[in-house]
Amino acid sequence: MTGFSSPLPEPHSIDLSTTYNTSEAGSLLALTLTNLPFVARRAFIVSNVPAGVTRGAHAHRTCEQFLVSLSGQIRVKLFDGHHTSDTLLHDPGDSLHLPAMVWGEQTYLDEAAQLLVFASHEYDPADYIDNVQEFLENCA
Amino acid sequence: MTGFSSPLPEPHSIDLSTTYNTSEAGSLLALTLTNLPFVARRAFIVSNVPAGVTRGAHAHRTCEQFLVSLSGQIRVKLFDGHHTSDTLLHDPGDSLHLPAMVWGEQTYLDEAAQLLVFASHEYDPADYIDNVQEFLENCA
Repeated sequence: MTGFSSPLPEPHSIDLSTTYNTSEAGSLLALTLTNLPFVARRAFIVSNVPAGVTRGAHAHRTCEQFLVSLSGQIRVKLFDGHHTSDTLLHDPGDSLHLPAMVWGEQTYLDEAAQLLVFASHEYDPADYIDNVQEFLENCA
Repeated sequence: MTGFSSPLPEPHSIDLSTTYNTSEAGSLLALTLTNLPFVARRAFIVSNVPAGVTRGAHAHRTCEQFLVSLSGQIRVKLFDGHHTSDTLLHDPGDSLHLPAMVWGEQTYLDEAAQLLVFASHEYDPADYIDNVQEFLENCA
């Protein structure tokens, strides 16, 4: 992703009316799913990632995703073929919309980092573009 | 909840086509939300609960919930006014359907325990019954 210096338009941050409350009985992070920009058909949770490891590094042809930090710090880079953005999810509930045909990379900065992802489509290997040259050809 | 010895009918366990994969790059727990028995309008995540603490201890008049363990061990007691059940969620992805008008209590057995809950309705304080006598009167 180095070499793309122009910023993406401000990443699309959508308000899920997120609340995060902590008491001596624990923490509760709540999200209003009806505020998602798509119907979530799948969810996944990424955890136990060694500090500094980058995951993602692909785009989806049609699947939209919505990324929500559960804990720790996660750096999210997006690249639409022309512009990049770099966003730090640093508090529980920090979130980012990852549209289709946008390359995404997530770097887990500490071992406590956990990411909850909602996806508009069920898992389909054919929907992945994990070769950046192929991605660029599709963006052109 | 002690004193109710008859078991609930087998708690309704619904297959979300859950997968859990771990590699040296981390763990990924995936859930198919279209398999939920309701449209999830809200989600919440409970974490950082001191070991041994019990949360929940209420029923909902109309809201259904679906409980998914993310990590650690969580004991879930259900009580429908006549019968109880006691289920240990011990692996990531272990899940349980909590229908409306069922009293639920969740005991977090270790500090790593985290619970993801999908709810059929948005937050409504009037939907809670947190007094067991009132619950029993509504069950009668």
